[in-house]
Amino acid sequence: MQMERIRASIAGASGYAGGEVVRWLARHPRVELVHLTAFREQGRPVADVFPNLRGFAPQTLNGTGWRDLGADSDVVFLALPHGAAIEAVPQLLDRGARVIDLGADFRLKDPEIYARWYGAEHTAPDLLAAAVYGLPEQTRECIRTAALVANPGCYPTAAALALLPLVKSGLTGGPLIVDAKSGVSGAGRNPSAGTHFSEVNENLKPYKLGSHRHGPEMEQTFAAAGAPVPVYFAPHLAPMTRGILATCYAPLTGDLSEEGARALYRDAYRDEPFVRVLEGDELPQTKATLSSNFCDVAVRVDPERGLAVAVSAIDNLVKGAAGQAIQNMNLMFGFPETEGLWAPPMFP
Amino acid sequence: MQMERIRASIAGASGYAGGEVVRWLARHPRVELVHLTAFREQGRPVADVFPNLRGFAPQTLNGTGWRDLGADSDVVFLALPHGAAIEAVPQLLDRGARVIDLGADFRLKDPEIYARWYGAEHTAPDLLAAAVYGLPEQTRECIRTAALVANPGCYPTAAALALLPLVKSGLTGGPLIVDAKSGVSGAGRNPSAGTHFSEVNENLKPYKLGSHRHGPEMEQTFAAAGAPVPVYFAPHLAPMTRGILATCYAPLTGDLSEEGARALYRDAYRDEPFVRVLEGDELPQTKATLSSNFCDVAVRVDPERGLAVAVSAIDNLVKGAAGQAIQNMNLMFGFPETEGLWAPPMFP
Amino acid sequence: MQMERIRASIAGASGYAGGEVVRWLARHPRVELVHLTAFREQGRPVADVFPNLRGFAPQTLNGTGWRDLGADSDVVFLALPHGAAIEAVPQLLDRGARVIDLGADFRLKDPEIYARWYGAEHTAPDLLAAAVYGLPEQTRECIRTAALVANPGCYPTAAALALLPLVKSGLTGGPLIVDAKSGVSGAGRNPSAGTHFSEVNENLKPYKLGSHRHGPEMEQTFAAAGAPVPVYFAPHLAPMTRGILATCYAPLTGDLSEEGARALYRDAYRDEPFVRVLEGDELPQTKATLSSNFCDVAVRVDPERGLAVAVSAIDNLVKGAAGQAIQNMNLMFGFPETEGLWAPPMFP
Amino acid sequence: MQMERIRASIAGASGYAGGEVVRWLARHPRVELVHLTAFREQGRPVADVFPNLRGFAPQTLNGTGWRDLGADSDVVFLALPHGAAIEAVPQLLDRGARVIDLGADFRLKDPEIYARWYGAEHTAPDLLAAAVYGLPEQTRECIRTAALVANPGCYPTAAALALLPLVKSGLTGGPLIVDAKSGVSGAGRNPSAGTHFSEVNENLKPYKLGSHRHGPEMEQTFAAAGAPVPVYFAPHLAPMTRGILATCYAPLTGDLSEEGARALYRDAYRDEPFVRVLEGDELPQTKATLSSNFCDVAVRVDPERGLAVAVSAIDNLVKGAAGQAIQNMNLMFGFPETEGLWAPPMFP
Repeated sequence: MQMERIRASIAGASGYAGGEVVRWLARHPRVELVHLTAFREQGRPVADVFPNLRGFAPQTLNGTGWRDLGADSDVVFLALPHGAAIEAVPQLLDRGARVIDLGADFRLKDPEIYARWYGAEHTAPDLLAAAVYGLPEQTRECIRTAALVANPGCYPTAAALALLPLVKSGLTGGPLIVDAKSGVSGAGRNPSAGTHFSEVNENLKPYKLGSHRHGPEMEQTFAAAGAPVPVYFAPHLAPMTRGILATCYAPLTGDLSEEGARALYRDAYRDEPFVRVLEGDELPQTKATLSSNFCDVAVRVDPERGLAVAVSAIDNLVKGAAGQAIQNMNLMFGFPETEGLWAPPMFP
Repeated sequence: MQMERIRASIAGASGYAGGEVVRWLARHPRVELVHLTAFREQGRPVADVFPNLRGFAPQTLNGTGWRDLGADSDVVFLALPHGAAIEAVPQLLDRGARVIDLGADFRLKDPEIYARWYGAEHTAPDLLAAAVYGLPEQTRECIRTAALVANPGCYPTAAALALLPLVKSGLTGGPLIVDAKSGVSGAGRNPSAGTHFSEVNENLKPYKLGSHRHGPEMEQTFAAAGAPVPVYFAPHLAPMTRGILATCYAPLTGDLSEEGARALYRDAYRDEPFVRVLEGDELPQTKATLSSNFCDVAVRVDPERGLAVAVSAIDNLVKGAAGQAIQNMNLMFGFPETEGLWAPPMFP
Repeated sequence: MQMERIRASIAGASGYAGGEVVRWLARHPRVELVHLTAFREQGRPVADVFPNLRGFAPQTLNGTGWRDLGADSDVVFLALPHGAAIEAVPQLLDRGARVIDLGADFRLKDPEIYARWYGAEHTAPDLLAAAVYGLPEQTRECIRTAALVANPGCYPTAAALALLPLVKSGLTGGPLIVDAKSGVSGAGRNPSAGTHFSEVNENLKPYKLGSHRHGPEMEQTFAAAGAPVPVYFAPHLAPMTRGILATCYAPLTGDLSEEGARALYRDAYRDEPFVRVLEGDELPQTKATLSSNFCDVAVRVDPERGLAVAVSAIDNLVKGAAGQAIQNMNLMFGFPETEGLWAPPMFP
Repeated sequence: MQMERIRASIAGASGYAGGEVVRWLARHPRVELVHLTAFREQGRPVADVFPNLRGFAPQTLNGTGWRDLGADSDVVFLALPHGAAIEAVPQLLDRGARVIDLGADFRLKDPEIYARWYGAEHTAPDLLAAAVYGLPEQTRECIRTAALVANPGCYPTAAALALLPLVKSGLTGGPLIVDAKSGVSGAGRNPSAGTHFSEVNENLKPYKLGSHRHGPEMEQTFAAAGAPVPVYFAPHLAPMTRGILATCYAPLTGDLSEEGARALYRDAYRDEPFVRVLEGDELPQTKATLSSNFCDVAVRVDPERGLAVAVSAIDNLVKGAAGQAIQNMNLMFGFPETEGLWAPPMFP
């Protein structure tokens, strides 16, 4: 029996997030890839742009971008530069497609906060209100019926899954400190001094301390969970291609033993297919989640210093981008949530 | 409809090749994993030994090694130290299992050559004669009915797929030079000075120049193809985890244009599911095959210098070990050859 | 004019810290290398153990360890396993040598704290009292006349230089959080699963959260500066050979503007030859200190969250070990403090 | 006694080769750095462009390029894009400076070969004839008196030092095969897809097989040594920042034992300060030469296959560029050849 397939298109298919969506959808049993567009790569075979996809994606890249999409697609994934989705989404929705936006245009729900961090008014505030923030572990039910899903940022995904059980317990008032270390693919595919091999390799460095746009996204997530707490976000660049490790520090306002904290996490994630709570002495490491949609989480408590420490690891391009987008698609179209995503990470 | 599954066991499941067999079989639709054994890891959960497999392999590791296997398995994969398979295979076959040996014990068909390179007589010469060298692109039909398959070495796989079309053309008499660069996982999982991060990272070095045991295996493959030629094999260690790039130099004895050489390769691999012949200016790179069973191949000719140069890239743990073993299993049990293996490489 | 040279010997010369002392002393204009010992490498030429030193260190390694040293050396560097220096130091001092211990045996001044963290009574408590903690930026004057210098740990060096100006200001009461990321060479030269290339490469992971022995060493340093504060120390392993980046978070108890914080640092380090306070938007990165004795430092303040964030970068084998030891030697023997150490880092 | 210093300037000081010249000259006892120019970096402090040089190079970069140089410099190092030196050199020589060109403009002595490989006539053929190819091991005496030195390419340096003793023996007629693996810094500092971290990391690939401009430079070197032989040059990119390993294959035309070959190399390099011939089983590895001006060399012979195999390792930015340039400068100005360069490589 051949299962019926939905039709999916991807705008911005030449970047890493877009390419990763293609890689996973290429063998998703419920999806047919229809159009792949990339503004700068008009007419190039996909395999020229992604040498791994030779044999998997016969399409050539369409250079018209998102403008032709929507009418013959059930779902459109947007992996576009900041700002482009604001223009695209209304038209795509009008044509009847549902949209999963991997960019940041619809993540911050408060237009004022958006304006403060992006330096411009949001020109589609009604859609901002309608968009569902697509973190299944927090907003699963809303995702199922959403026309527009704002796929979370990579860092906010790691921080939210590390901290939500603790924040929701009400035992911390912050400020939470999120010290996150990311692989270089998080910076995208455009060559620059900051992603030049010889300068990134054998180097570890912080950047945008306290001023990265993913900080307010984290605060929004905790506020949405009913527990507004301030977050200090410190991103770092690590000499590896994929992976985010988030080490999160929370000052405790109430009594919490380490066993109590561990129980909070076990309970919170008991039924989550893609969150693995580590037991015993084990701690998350990025390599244990490589090329998978899993998030590994662990928590520790230092009662003497009044601190809880939660750690999470993800593959920034999968659970931090393309995999989570497909998890959202599965929810939106009533497929099993793990369809096309259930595979062990690569190791070593 | 649930497809019927064969029962598979793995001896030596705590090393990289064994673990990679588990990773791929964990979602092979036609296989049920029965026993995983590892001599030194008695009773440990698989997820302790392979953090990526948490949630995928509920089994604990059985420390009795291969001795208990066979009776309730249709196929046993052996990923054992040199010499161990010679003892194990007769007993496993007696118990009715078919065997795929990822080690070197049954690769060299000539007992004299075996003795010269391994420093000891082969104690099961009859089985050596019966074993089928499991390179599907060369020995597909024999694999289908084999009771015992000797899975090729990682380097010989890369060298054979790079050079076979050329060697079979009769246009080179050698000596062929195979300059291969391998990721460190090829050296296995036992810690040593030669795999110590700080000494391997940011380093490139040759080893065993002209004296690696994979050299005679390459010569055997070409002789089996009807064209015995001497091979000089120069392995190198590169600072990466996975991947082999083999750059192969063949002095030409007859007229061969580059277009002619390219046609040889296109013809040879037209129907091969896992060999991708690159066109135009493209050259193989290990990253384009990462975490996949593909071998990418290209050929060039320098008529002025009378040389053909063939290049191949593989993931040493997949097409160079576990993936090829599963490709062999698919052939042995009449499954589609690509079953459980058809997935795009990871990039970046 | 030939300057007079002191005679130096190194016990434990086959590890990374010992080898790095040899590398720097090999061209120190005021030092003659006399004996190099390494227990397990009896009689091996130094160049066999350190391929970089071919042509620089004609000595063979003496396998008797430290037992023969002292009588004909002005200074002995100890780079030994935990515990060995406690036995060695009294005898070396008796023979008239001054000692710089790169290990941990004499770092923790309080025998009770030592016993708690090292699981055994300290058997030379009088020497513990006499030893000078060799962080020149804090204890310069005492180092000059010390017979025994305890060279600080790599992490505590990075944390102290990042936080001392802030802690001494009295504007933070802690708990200080030190989130440090280290290259793999910090784990030493003995091969193990935790330093195996294939498992460390492309991986980032925390370890010993809140339970690493360098934590109490940090607290001791701040207490010695007159401002006891609790420290939560979270070490991480990063996929690179050298370098430590310490990102340190300090809750503020009083008013401190970012400009005020920057001024504290400029003042504190104005005359320090090996601490570079970065200005403007620049942040420390490990690569900018690679293969040098420099520590780069920067500070930021988030008034809204009541946090100061101080960042430092060092080469863990130089300022974090061998370079600092030589800086201490220069002080002990009245040489210019930068002698033999004044060289730009390597980049890229 | 203060030694008299020559005055040196560098044009193109913002690239890796230029920056490496600055790094080494910053502590050369016989050189005063006068001007550093970089066309695109007008007025920026050197430490902004090279974070390692903070504290070592107070100069700001002069954006006028080479046009103002020469009159007040004894020597000018040119690290410019292809073609720029042809215009600069005549004027610099006129102003009385001696010139060391790290680019390719004056390397190929035959204007026809230059035109074929660079696609344009050489517009200063007389200077081409006057320029001395600056490989001290081959042309030391001519370098001493040269007004213009063409500093060899990185790959040709590695290939020449690996093969010259063998080629000069007359025992090989070629074609020589040079399979070289280079770190990414050899591709320069301009960001591009080919140097983008996420695509180069964990990847090994060949490029410009048989068509790289360093191929004819190698043939010229062997012809200049009296033994013209064809060379097939196969460059590869390896995932590391620095280092070239050249594995070179030479078909033998006469009898040569391995011991004989080893003796050839020992004899050839006995008095060379920067070539280390490895003995016994040791083989060159890039890490053993990192951050040094050394070239490590070894040779093997396979009599059965009629092949000699010579291997060399260098740091491409030192012996392959800046270090060799300074070695040439030392020769030109009568300084000890190792002045300012005599330092052990970094390890690990």
